[in-house]
Amino acid sequence: MKIAVLPGDGIGPEIIAQARRVLDVLRQDGLPIELEEAPLGGAGYDAYGVPYPEFTQKLCRAADAVLLGAVGGPQYDTLDRPLRPERGLLAIRKDLNLFANLRPAILYPELANASTLKPEVVSGLDIMIVRELTGDIYFGQPRGMGVNEQGEREAFNTMRYSESEVRRIAHVAFGIAMKRNKKLCSVDKANVLETTEFWKEIMIDVAREYPQVELSHMYVDNAAMQLVRNPKQFDVMVTGNIFGDILSDEASMLTGSIGMLPSASLDQNNKGLYEPSHGSAPDIAGKNLANPLATILSAAMMLRYTFAQEEAAQRVENAVKTVLAQGYRTGDIFEAGCQKVSCSGMGDAVVAAL
Amino acid sequence: MKIAVLPGDGIGPEIIAQARRVLDVLRQDGLPIELEEAPLGGAGYDAYGVPYPEFTQKLCRAADAVLLGAVGGPQYDTLDRPLRPERGLLAIRKDLNLFANLRPAILYPELANASTLKPEVVSGLDIMIVRELTGDIYFGQPRGMGVNEQGEREAFNTMRYSESEVRRIAHVAFGIAMKRNKKLCSVDKANVLETTEFWKEIMIDVAREYPQVELSHMYVDNAAMQLVRNPKQFDVMVTGNIFGDILSDEASMLTGSIGMLPSASLDQNNKGLYEPSHGSAPDIAGKNLANPLATILSAAMMLRYTFAQEEAAQRVENAVKTVLAQGYRTGDIFEAGCQKVSCSGMGDAVVAAL
Ligand SMILES: CC(C)[C@H](C(=O)O)[C@@H](O)C(=O)O
Ligand SMILES: CC(C)[C@H](C(=O)O)[C@@H](O)C(=O)O
Repeated sequence: MKIAVLPGDGIGPEIIAQARRVLDVLRQDGLPIELEEAPLGGAGYDAYGVPYPEFTQKLCRAADAVLLGAVGGPQYDTLDRPLRPERGLLAIRKDLNLFANLRPAILYPELANASTLKPEVVSGLDIMIVRELTGDIYFGQPRGMGVNEQGEREAFNTMRYSESEVRRIAHVAFGIAMKRNKKLCSVDKANVLETTEFWKEIMIDVAREYPQVELSHMYVDNAAMQLVRNPKQFDVMVTGNIFGDILSDEASMLTGSIGMLPSASLDQNNKGLYEPSHGSAPDIAGKNLANPLATILSAAMMLRYTFAQEEAAQRVENAVKTVLAQGYRTGDIFEAGCQKVSCSGMGDAVVAAL
Repeated sequence: MKIAVLPGDGIGPEIIAQARRVLDVLRQDGLPIELEEAPLGGAGYDAYGVPYPEFTQKLCRAADAVLLGAVGGPQYDTLDRPLRPERGLLAIRKDLNLFANLRPAILYPELANASTLKPEVVSGLDIMIVRELTGDIYFGQPRGMGVNEQGEREAFNTMRYSESEVRRIAHVAFGIAMKRNKKLCSVDKANVLETTEFWKEIMIDVAREYPQVELSHMYVDNAAMQLVRNPKQFDVMVTGNIFGDILSDEASMLTGSIGMLPSASLDQNNKGLYEPSHGSAPDIAGKNLANPLATILSAAMMLRYTFAQEEAAQRVENAVKTVLAQGYRTGDIFEAGCQKVSCSGMGDAVVAAL
């Protein structure tokens, strides 16, 4: 179980340190885990002058899975665009062909108050958003800035999907729906965009291979509304890269505790990159204040999806549930009556619960 | 004051009938209002075989403003794409050059309970979303389906903005910010899309002409989150056509009472199309159950933006506030202790309050 560990920037190193402690426990208990670190994002730029250095590429290509902290920070904002931290993230996704981004939005009962939504609207929320991650307008050509036929400056990007790109993400989404409540909602803007009309047609075609799954379709504007109006109507959602970027962030914020939400980005063979859904939080970096649970839960997803170690995954997830039940809270999820702990303090609690 | 009235489909005719009664009162009180009706959407298809018939085009081109009910219905879902109701809407926007879509998201104090968000998060909410409406990926060429270089089926659309398109919507947004709290948030995905990087640059440039307005920038994924986390941080938001489609629907649902929200789509000379933010609600069409207030408030926006009749606009808006304070509610906003009224009953109440 070769794992490339990319702490990244901001709070990345701190939260990764706690996830490593969790993996260390599992190794001591017999899992053949091997960890090696490399820089990505701003850390890559600092060390090698680029956000996705060759050293990191080699390590990640050779690994079975990648565990990432977070990338980005204000000190990199003035760099040339190709050198910026998020370019490292886009590059590694494309390089490793991580086309399937899984982003759960789960509300932990103990943290129900953290949501800005009324408890009855979000209690028990458990949505899985499947976002296509290596196509769409993120990577479509042609793109750029130029001058149009009227001699005016303009800029353009291309939304583009090929049949195989849509088909493979459809299979991932239907596969996940099969393991859950067998309800899949495909989100598109088929009334306006040919690309998503094509997407919808292929979803309908693939659905024939999964007769047990109930497939529905929703326009992206309506989906953005329905997530606010009644999010519990959703089980699994599948959508393209840009709509998925927007809707998965909206969905994670419904919980009010984005510091709890992991994510996975998988290739065709379940090799994956795992990272928390939150960012690098430069404002609290280096202060031992960050919430490491999303990163620890990302490690659990890694055990499940890449290594098929369902038992170990559940052991980690149960440890997280235990520490929440015990009342441990980092600052982002703190409320009166609970015990406030530091990032490493939360790591202590999880290790103890394991 | 020549107004083309397009009842459209579903509940369209019912809600338009109530807005007409309001305009009739204003006419009796001296405003030189002239109304003429024409079909759009499914009604256009039924009457003339196309969603934006020539008859309607002529009337709308000659009018100073257009008041629209809503378009769409299940009976039109199987029509060829160019014949579908929403094509009529896209066509009229483009034909009349209605590039500036103004979508307020206002929470009426009396309706605070309708929101799925906690009262403290949304009480007093008053956001104005300015959405560019005639450019972006909605209209960008090339677009379509085809076969790629690998011989595989694919589909594509083009996101595209020219400098003048961005500049004119920027001026509208800054102008509106000047009349409100002088805070403008421009939403982009400049870390990934050149089109929106270009958009951002032009916003910054135009900002120099409005030194009193505080301009900020936010990525669209973050904006989708922040609308849920803390919507009251926003005053005016400006964004492109597709992001605006998604975010304005999300924002309107924060109020929980989309039956209350009007919208305006303006050209360069304040000619405009006014319509409720909600849809044609085929399920309750013809039952006298719909909420006509968003349409009545759309007429108020028309008085304000196209006819510069601020006093008349406020008179209508105050009448709506009065009927809410009096406890009249259509089914969509009903709660215990209030008096349930029909669509025409609500019209009665507004006319009385006027
Ligand atoms: C940092 C950015 C390029 C990235 C994206 O848009 O994919 C981020 O928002 C995400 O969702 O992982
Ligand atoms: C019906 C559809 C084409 C339209 C749009 O996407 O613009 C609608 O969602 C809107 O926001 O007015």
